[in-house]
Amino acid sequence: MQLYNYFRSSASYRVRIALALKGLDYEYKPVHLVKREQLAESYAAVSASRLVPLLRDGDATLTQSMAIIEYLDETHPEPPLLPKEALGRARVRALAQDMACEIHPLNNLRVLRYLVHDLKVSEDDKNRWYRHWVETGLEVVERQMAEHPATGRFCHGDTPGLADCVLVPQVFNAQRFNCRLDHVPTVMRVYEACMQLDAFDKTQPAACPDAE
Amino acid sequence: MQLYNYFRSSASYRVRIALALKGLDYEYKPVHLVKREQLAESYAAVSASRLVPLLRDGDATLTQSMAIIEYLDETHPEPPLLPKEALGRARVRALAQDMACEIHPLNNLRVLRYLVHDLKVSEDDKNRWYRHWVETGLEVVERQMAEHPATGRFCHGDTPGLADCVLVPQVFNAQRFNCRLDHVPTVMRVYEACMQLDAFDKTQPAACPDAE
Repeated sequence: MQLYNYFRSSASYRVRIALALKGLDYEYKPVHLVKREQLAESYAAVSASRLVPLLRDGDATLTQSMAIIEYLDETHPEPPLLPKEALGRARVRALAQDMACEIHPLNNLRVLRYLVHDLKVSEDDKNRWYRHWVETGLEVVERQMAEHPATGRFCHGDTPGLADCVLVPQVFNAQRFNCRLDHVPTVMRVYEACMQLDAFDKTQPAACPDAE
Repeated sequence: MQLYNYFRSSASYRVRIALALKGLDYEYKPVHLVKREQLAESYAAVSASRLVPLLRDGDATLTQSMAIIEYLDETHPEPPLLPKEALGRARVRALAQDMACEIHPLNNLRVLRYLVHDLKVSEDDKNRWYRHWVETGLEVVERQMAEHPATGRFCHGDTPGLADCVLVPQVFNAQRFNCRLDHVPTVMRVYEACMQLDAFDKTQPAACPDAE
Protein backbone atom coordinates (compact mmCIF):
# COMPACT_ATOMS: atom_id res chain seq x y z
CA MET A 1 0.00 0.00 0.00
CA GLN A 2 1.02 3.59 -0.60
CA LEU A 3 -0.25 6.51 1.46
CA TYR A 4 -0.15 9.94 -0.15
CA ASN A 5 -0.21 12.36 2.72
CA TYR A 6 1.22 15.43 4.42
CA PHE A 7 2.77 15.34 7.87
CA ARG A 8 0.65 18.19 9.21
CA SER A 9 -2.66 17.21 7.59
CA SER A 10 -4.84 15.92 10.38
CA ALA A 11 -6.93 13.83 7.99
CA SER A 12 -3.66 12.16 6.91
CA TYR A 13 -2.68 11.57 10.53
CA ARG A 14 -6.02 9.77 11.12
CA VAL A 15 -5.15 7.22 8.45
CA ARG A 16 -1.55 6.82 9.66
CA ILE A 17 -2.92 5.92 13.10
CA ALA A 18 -5.38 3.39 11.67
CA LEU A 19 -2.68 1.72 9.57
CA ALA A 20 -0.45 1.54 12.63
CA LEU A 21 -3.23 0.11 14.84
CA LYS A 22 -3.75 -2.57 12.19
CA GLY A 23 -0.01 -3.21 11.98
CA LEU A 24 0.00 -2.56 8.22
CA ASP A 25 3.11 -1.48 6.33
CA TYR A 26 2.91 1.15 3.62
CA GLU A 27 5.04 3.40 1.51
CA TYR A 28 4.94 7.01 2.68
CA LYS A 29 4.38 9.40 -0.23
CA PRO A 30 4.64 13.04 0.86
CA VAL A 31 2.46 15.70 -0.81
CA HIS A 32 3.39 19.19 0.38
CA LEU A 33 0.11 21.08 0.86
CA VAL A 34 1.66 24.45 1.65
CA LYS A 35 3.66 24.25 -1.58
CA ARG A 36 0.33 23.19 -3.19
CA GLU A 37 1.78 20.00 -4.60
CA GLN A 38 -1.73 18.49 -4.41
CA LEU A 39 -2.68 20.71 -7.37
CA ALA A 40 0.27 19.70 -9.55
CA GLU A 41 -0.36 17.68 -12.72
CA SER A 42 1.66 14.77 -11.33
CA TYR A 43 -0.74 14.45 -8.38
CA ALA A 44 -3.85 15.04 -10.49
CA ALA A 45 -2.88 11.88 -12.36
CA VAL A 46 -3.07 9.97 -9.07
CA SER A 47 -5.99 11.75 -7.45
CA ALA A 48 -9.24 13.00 -9.00
CA SER A 49 -10.04 14.87 -5.78
CA ARG A 50 -6.58 16.45 -5.39
CA LEU A 51 -6.91 16.05 -1.65
CA VAL A 52 -4.82 14.09 0.82
CA PRO A 53 -4.85 11.51 2.25
CA LEU A 54 -5.11 9.01 -0.57
CA LEU A 55 -4.41 5.31 -0.17
CA ARG A 56 -3.43 2.99 -3.00
CA ASP A 57 -4.08 -0.66 -2.34
CA GLY A 58 -3.06 -2.67 -5.39
CA ASP A 59 -4.98 -1.13 -8.29
CA ALA A 60 -7.50 0.56 -6.02
CA THR A 61 -7.41 4.24 -5.11
CA LEU A 62 -9.15 5.27 -1.91
CA THR A 63 -9.95 8.76 -0.67
CA GLN A 64 -11.56 10.46 2.34
CA SER A 65 -9.96 9.50 5.63
CA MET A 66 -13.03 8.03 7.36
CA ALA A 67 -13.93 5.98 4.28
CA ILE A 68 -10.33 4.72 4.11
CA ILE A 69 -10.37 3.72 7.77
CA GLU A 70 -13.66 1.82 7.37
CA TYR A 71 -12.17 0.09 4.31
CA LEU A 72 -9.11 -0.95 6.31
CA ASP A 73 -11.39 -2.21 9.06
CA GLU A 74 -13.41 -4.30 6.58
CA THR A 75 -10.40 -5.72 4.75
CA HIS A 76 -8.18 -6.21 7.85
CA PRO A 77 -10.66 -6.87 10.65
CA GLU A 78 -8.14 -7.29 13.49
CA PRO A 79 -7.99 -5.38 15.75
CA PRO A 80 -11.44 -3.92 15.06
CA LEU A 81 -11.78 -0.12 14.95
CA LEU A 82 -15.57 -0.20 15.29
CA PRO A 83 -17.64 -2.11 17.84
CA LYS A 84 -19.79 -5.04 16.77
CA GLU A 85 -23.29 -3.76 17.68
CA ALA A 86 -25.08 -1.24 15.47
CA LEU A 87 -25.66 1.28 18.27
CA GLY A 88 -22.02 1.29 19.29
CA ARG A 89 -20.93 1.64 15.68
CA ALA A 90 -23.30 4.58 15.26
CA ARG A 91 -21.91 6.24 18.38
CA VAL A 92 -18.30 5.87 17.26
CA ARG A 93 -19.09 7.15 13.76
CA ALA A 94 -21.05 10.09 15.16
CA LEU A 95 -18.17 11.08 17.46
CA ALA A 96 -15.75 10.87 14.54
CA GLN A 97 -18.10 12.97 12.42
CA ASP A 98 -18.57 15.53 15.20
CA MET A 99 -14.92 16.34 14.56
CA ALA A 100 -14.46 15.41 10.89
CA CYS A 101 -17.65 17.18 9.71
CA GLU A 102 -18.16 19.96 12.24
CA ILE A 103 -14.69 21.17 13.21
CA HIS A 104 -11.95 20.17 10.81
CA PRO A 105 -13.51 21.30 7.49
CA LEU A 106 -13.70 24.87 8.79
CA ASN A 107 -10.04 24.96 9.67
CA ASN A 108 -8.22 23.32 6.83
CA LEU A 109 -5.60 25.10 4.81
CA ARG A 110 -7.67 26.01 1.78
CA VAL A 111 -10.39 27.53 3.96
CA LEU A 112 -7.92 29.62 5.97
CA ARG A 113 -6.40 30.72 2.67
CA TYR A 114 -9.81 31.83 1.37
CA LEU A 115 -10.48 33.79 4.56
CA VAL A 116 -7.21 35.68 4.25
CA HIS A 117 -6.86 36.08 0.49
CA ASP A 118 -10.45 36.41 -0.66
CA LEU A 119 -12.27 37.80 2.36
CA LYS A 120 -9.27 39.87 3.56
CA VAL A 121 -9.76 38.67 7.10
CA SER A 122 -7.00 39.77 9.49
CA GLU A 123 -4.55 37.31 11.03
CA ASP A 124 -6.18 37.85 14.42
CA ASP A 125 -9.67 37.20 13.10
CA LYS A 126 -8.46 34.12 11.27
CA ASN A 127 -7.01 32.73 14.48
CA ARG A 128 -10.17 33.60 16.37
CA TRP A 129 -12.21 31.74 13.71
CA TYR A 130 -9.94 28.72 14.06
CA ARG A 131 -10.22 28.64 17.84
CA HIS A 132 -13.96 29.29 17.80
CA TRP A 133 -14.74 26.13 15.81
CA VAL A 134 -12.26 23.98 17.72
CA GLU A 135 -13.37 25.14 21.16
CA THR A 136 -17.13 24.99 20.53
CA GLY A 137 -16.83 21.80 18.49
CA LEU A 138 -14.78 19.93 21.08
CA GLU A 139 -17.29 21.06 23.71
CA VAL A 140 -19.92 19.10 21.77
CA VAL A 141 -17.65 16.05 21.75
CA GLU A 142 -17.03 16.47 25.48
CA ARG A 143 -20.77 16.58 26.21
CA GLN A 144 -21.30 13.38 24.24
CA MET A 145 -18.47 11.60 26.03
CA ALA A 146 -18.38 12.94 29.59
CA GLU A 147 -21.33 11.14 31.08
CA HIS A 148 -21.86 8.38 28.56
CA PRO A 149 -21.52 4.88 30.03
CA ALA A 150 -19.80 3.60 26.85
CA THR A 151 -16.87 5.99 27.21
CA GLY A 152 -13.93 4.09 28.58
CA ARG A 153 -10.19 4.52 28.54
CA PHE A 154 -10.78 5.53 24.90
CA CYS A 155 -13.74 7.18 23.14
CA HIS A 156 -15.70 3.95 23.17
CA GLY A 157 -14.63 1.28 25.61
CA ASP A 158 -11.07 0.30 26.43
CA THR A 159 -9.62 -0.24 22.97
CA PRO A 160 -8.82 2.51 20.47
CA GLY A 161 -11.01 2.90 17.40
CA LEU A 162 -12.20 5.18 14.61
CA ALA A 163 -13.22 8.05 16.90
CA ASP A 164 -9.80 8.03 18.59
CA CYS A 165 -8.12 8.15 15.16
CA VAL A 166 -9.98 11.45 14.61
CA LEU A 167 -9.76 12.86 18.14
CA VAL A 168 -5.98 12.81 18.50
CA PRO A 169 -5.18 14.77 15.29
CA GLN A 170 -7.91 17.27 16.24
CA VAL A 171 -6.26 17.86 19.62
CA PHE A 172 -2.89 18.27 17.89
CA ASN A 173 -4.40 21.02 15.73
CA ALA A 174 -6.01 22.62 18.76
CA GLN A 175 -2.68 22.76 20.58
CA ARG A 176 -0.85 24.16 17.56
CA PHE A 177 -3.30 27.08 17.44
CA ASN A 178 -3.30 27.59 21.22
CA CYS A 179 -6.94 26.70 21.64
CA ARG A 180 -8.51 26.47 25.06
CA LEU A 181 -8.75 22.85 26.16
CA ASP A 182 -9.44 23.05 29.90
CA HIS A 183 -13.20 22.77 29.25
CA VAL A 184 -12.87 19.32 27.64
CA PRO A 185 -11.28 17.11 30.34
CA THR A 186 -12.67 13.84 28.98
CA VAL A 187 -11.38 14.59 25.48
CA MET A 188 -7.95 15.34 26.97
CA ARG A 189 -7.96 12.23 29.14
CA VAL A 190 -8.62 10.09 26.08
CA TYR A 191 -5.97 11.99 24.12
CA GLU A 192 -3.38 11.26 26.82
CA ALA A 193 -4.33 7.57 26.86
CA CYS A 194 -3.94 7.38 23.09
CA MET A 195 -0.55 9.07 23.08
CA GLN A 196 0.80 6.33 25.30
CA LEU A 197 0.33 3.93 22.39
CA ASP A 198 2.94 3.62 19.65
CA ALA A 199 0.28 3.72 16.92
CA PHE A 200 -0.54 7.31 17.88
CA ASP A 201 2.87 8.46 19.03
CA LYS A 202 5.06 7.16 16.21
CA THR A 203 2.77 8.49 13.47
CA GLN A 204 2.47 12.02 14.84
CA PRO A 205 3.36 14.94 12.55
CA ALA A 206 6.82 15.53 14.02
CA ALA A 207 7.74 11.87 13.46
CA CYS A 208 6.89 11.88 9.74
CA PRO A 209 9.56 11.66 7.01
CA ASP A 210 8.42 15.02 5.57
CA ALA A 211 8.24 16.83 8.94
CA GLU A 212 9.80 20.26 8.98
CA MET B 1 -38.84 6.29 15.61
CA GLN B 2 -38.78 10.06 15.94
CA LEU B 3 -36.75 12.33 13.70
CA TYR B 4 -35.84 15.74 15.06
CA ASN B 5 -35.11 17.84 12.02
CA TYR B 6 -35.63 21.06 10.08
CA PHE B 7 -37.16 21.17 6.63
CA ARG B 8 -34.34 23.19 5.12
CA SER B 9 -31.44 21.41 6.85
CA SER B 10 -29.74 19.37 4.18
CA ALA B 11 -28.32 16.93 6.73
CA SER B 12 -31.91 16.35 7.90
CA TYR B 13 -33.06 15.80 4.33
CA ARG B 14 -30.39 13.08 3.89
CA VAL B 15 -31.93 11.09 6.73
CA ARG B 16 -35.50 11.65 5.52
CA ILE B 17 -34.48 10.16 2.16
CA ALA B 18 -32.84 7.14 3.80
CA LEU B 19 -35.89 6.48 5.99
CA ALA B 20 -38.12 6.71 2.91
CA LEU B 21 -35.88 4.40 0.85
CA LYS B 22 -36.13 1.87 3.69
CA GLY B 23 -39.89 2.35 3.90
CA LEU B 24 -39.67 3.25 7.61
CA ASP B 25 -42.31 5.32 9.38
CA TYR B 26 -41.35 7.96 11.90
CA GLU B 27 -42.71 10.87 13.81
CA TYR B 28 -41.58 14.22 12.38
CA LYS B 29 -40.32 16.54 15.13
CA PRO B 30 -39.52 20.01 13.78
CA VAL B 31 -36.67 22.05 15.27
CA HIS B 32 -36.55 25.55 13.83
CA LEU B 33 -32.89 26.38 13.24
CA VAL B 34 -33.40 29.98 12.19
CA LYS B 35 -35.34 30.61 15.42
CA ARG B 36 -32.44 28.76 17.13
CA GLU B 37 -34.74 26.23 18.75
CA GLN B 38 -31.83 23.77 18.71
CA LEU B 39 -30.22 25.82 21.48
CA ALA B 40 -33.32 25.86 23.72
CA GLU B 41 -33.25 23.97 27.01
CA SER B 42 -36.04 21.68 25.82
CA TYR B 43 -33.88 20.48 22.92
CA ALA B 44 -30.71 20.29 25.03
CA ALA B 45 -32.54 17.70 27.11
CA VAL B 46 -32.93 15.57 23.97
CA SER B 47 -29.64 16.33 22.26
CA ALA B 48 -26.15 16.69 23.73
CA SER B 49 -24.88 18.01 20.41
CA ARG B 50 -27.74 20.50 19.87
CA LEU B 51 -27.59 19.75 16.17
CA VAL B 52 -30.18 18.29 13.84
CA PRO B 53 -30.91 15.72 12.59
CA LEU B 54 -31.34 13.47 15.59
CA LEU B 55 -33.08 10.10 15.45
CA ARG B 56 -34.66 8.38 18.42
CA ASP B 57 -35.09 4.67 18.04
CA GLY B 58 -36.62 3.27 21.22
CA ASP B 59 -34.31 4.40 24.03
CA ALA B 60 -31.43 5.10 21.67
CA THR B 61 -30.46 8.58 20.49
CA LEU B 62 -28.54 8.82 17.23
CA THR B 63 -26.79 11.85 15.75
CA GLN B 64 -24.79 12.79 12.65
CA SER B 65 -26.64 12.10 9.42
CA MET B 66 -24.14 9.68 7.84
CA ALA B 67 -23.84 7.69 11.07
CA ILE B 68 -27.65 7.54 11.30
CA ILE B 69 -27.94 6.29 7.71
CA GLU B 70 -25.32 3.57 8.29
CA TYR B 71 -27.22 2.56 11.45
CA LEU B 72 -30.47 2.31 9.49
CA ASP B 73 -28.66 0.25 6.87
CA GLU B 74 -27.31 -2.14 9.51
CA THR B 75 -30.59 -2.50 11.40
CA HIS B 76 -32.88 -2.57 8.33
CA PRO B 77 -30.71 -4.10 5.61
CA GLU B 78 -33.28 -3.99 2.78
CA PRO B 79 -32.91 -2.28 0.40
CA PRO B 80 -29.16 -1.82 1.01
CA LEU B 81 -27.75 1.71 0.85
CA LEU B 82 -24.16 0.52 0.56
CA PRO B 83 -22.74 -2.07 -1.84
CA LYS B 84 -21.52 -5.42 -0.53
CA GLU B 85 -17.81 -5.27 -1.50
CA ALA B 86 -15.34 -3.22 0.55
CA LEU B 87 -14.10 -1.19 -2.42
CA GLY B 88 -17.59 -0.19 -3.49
CA ARG B 89 -18.50 0.71 0.08
CA ALA B 90 -15.38 2.87 0.31
CA ARG B 91 -16.26 4.61 -2.94
CA VAL B 92 -19.82 5.40 -1.82
CA ARG B 93 -18.65 6.63 1.58
CA ALA B 94 -15.95 8.78 -0.01
CA LEU B 95 -18.45 10.39 -2.41
CA ALA B 96 -20.79 11.10 0.51
CA GLN B 97 -17.90 12.57 2.49
CA ASP B 98 -16.75 14.69 -0.47
CA MET B 99 -20.00 16.56 0.08
CA ALA B 100 -20.67 16.06 3.79
CA CYS B 101 -17.10 16.91 4.88
CA GLU B 102 -15.84 19.25 2.16
CA ILE B 103 -18.83 21.33 1.07
CA HIS B 104 -21.71 21.35 3.50
CA PRO B 105 -19.86 22.21 6.75
CA LEU B 106 -18.66 25.46 5.20
CA ASN B 107 -22.15 26.55 4.29
CA ASN B 108 -24.33 25.70 7.20
CA LEU B 109 -26.33 28.31 9.07
CA ARG B 110 -24.04 28.79 12.05
CA VAL B 111 -21.02 29.30 9.79
CA LEU B 112 -22.80 31.87 7.61
CA ARG B 113 -23.90 33.59 10.81
CA TYR B 114 -20.32 33.76 12.06
CA LEU B 115 -19.13 35.22 8.75
CA VAL B 116 -21.73 37.99 8.88
CA HIS B 117 -21.91 38.74 12.61
CA ASP B 118 -18.37 38.10 13.76
CA LEU B 119 -16.25 38.69 10.68
CA LYS B 120 -18.54 41.45 9.30
CA VAL B 121 -18.45 39.90 5.86
CA SER B 122 -20.82 41.58 3.37
CA GLU B 123 -23.89 39.81 1.98
CA ASP B 124 -22.20 39.62 -1.42
CA ASP B 125 -19.03 38.09 -0.02
CA LYS B 126 -21.05 35.62 2.02
CA ASN B 127 -22.88 34.49 -1.11
CA ARG B 128 -19.61 34.25 -3.03
CA TRP B 129 -18.18 32.11 -0.21
CA TYR B 130 -21.22 29.84 -0.37
CA ARG B 131 -21.01 29.41 -4.13
CA HIS B 132 -17.25 28.96 -4.10
CA TRP B 133 -17.38 25.87 -1.88
CA VAL B 134 -20.39 24.39 -3.65
CA GLU B 135 -19.03 24.93 -7.15
CA THR B 136 -15.48 23.76 -6.48
CA GLY B 137 -16.66 20.93 -4.22
CA LEU B 138 -19.19 19.55 -6.69
CA GLU B 139 -16.49 19.71 -9.37
CA VAL B 140 -14.51 17.24 -7.27
CA VAL B 141 -17.57 14.97 -7.06
CA GLU B 142 -18.08 15.29 -10.81
CA ARG B 143 -14.48 14.26 -11.52
CA GLN B 144 -14.86 11.20 -9.31
CA MET B 145 -18.11 10.18 -10.99
CA ALA B 146 -17.86 11.22 -14.65
CA GLU B 147 -15.56 8.56 -15.97
CA HIS B 148 -15.82 5.96 -13.26
CA PRO B 149 -17.16 2.61 -14.45
CA ALA B 150 -19.12 2.09 -11.21
CA THR B 151 -21.26 5.20 -11.78
CA GLY B 152 -24.65 4.12 -13.05
CA ARG B 153 -28.09 5.61 -13.05
CA PHE B 154 -27.19 6.67 -9.50
CA CYS B 155 -23.86 7.54 -7.82
CA HIS B 156 -22.91 3.87 -7.61
CA GLY B 157 -24.75 1.46 -9.86
CA ASP B 158 -28.44 1.49 -10.64
CA THR B 159 -29.94 1.64 -7.17
CA PRO B 160 -29.89 4.68 -4.89
CA GLY B 161 -27.65 4.65 -1.82
CA LEU B 162 -25.83 6.67 0.81
CA ALA B 163 -24.06 8.95 -1.68
CA ASP B 164 -27.34 9.80 -3.40
CA CYS B 165 -28.88 10.66 0.00
CA VAL B 166 -26.15 13.30 0.33
CA LEU B 167 -26.00 14.46 -3.30
CA VAL B 168 -29.63 15.48 -3.69
CA PRO B 169 -29.80 17.80 -0.65
CA GLN B 170 -26.48 19.33 -1.73
CA VAL B 171 -27.92 20.13 -5.17
CA PHE B 172 -31.02 21.63 -3.50
CA ASN B 173 -28.75 23.97 -1.54
CA ALA B 174 -26.80 24.82 -4.67
CA GLN B 175 -29.95 25.77 -6.51
CA ARG B 176 -31.26 27.84 -3.63
CA PHE B 177 -28.08 29.94 -3.70
CA ASN B 178 -27.98 30.17 -7.50
CA CYS B 179 -24.74 28.24 -7.81
CA ARG B 180 -23.35 27.31 -11.19
CA LEU B 181 -24.17 23.71 -12.02
CA ASP B 182 -23.50 23.44 -15.76
CA HIS B 183 -19.97 22.14 -15.06
CA VAL B 184 -21.28 19.05 -13.22
CA PRO B 185 -23.45 17.20 -15.74
CA THR B 186 -23.05 13.76 -14.16
CA VAL B 187 -24.04 15.11 -10.74
CA MET B 188 -27.11 16.71 -12.30
CA ARG B 189 -28.02 13.59 -14.25
CA VAL B 190 -27.97 11.56 -11.03
CA TYR B 191 -29.93 14.29 -9.24
CA GLU B 192 -32.66 14.14 -11.90
CA ALA B 193 -32.81 10.35 -11.68
CA CYS B 194 -33.20 10.54 -7.89
CA MET B 195 -35.95 13.13 -8.05
CA GLN B 196 -38.06 10.74 -10.08
CA LEU B 197 -38.28 8.53 -7.00
CA ASP B 198 -40.84 9.19 -4.28
CA ALA B 199 -38.23 8.71 -1.54
CA PHE B 200 -36.40 11.83 -2.73
CA ASP B 201 -39.37 13.83 -4.00
CA LYS B 202 -41.80 13.42 -1.12
CA THR B 203 -39.20 14.23 1.55
CA GLN B 204 -37.91 17.41 -0.07
CA PRO B 205 -37.90 20.62 2.00
CA ALA B 206 -41.07 22.07 0.45
CA ALA B 207 -42.98 18.88 1.26
CA CYS B 208 -42.13 18.90 4.99
CA PRO B 209 -44.71 19.66 7.70
CA ASP B 210 -42.64 22.64 8.90
CA ALA B 211 -42.00 24.08 5.40
CA GLU B 212 -42.50 27.82 5.11
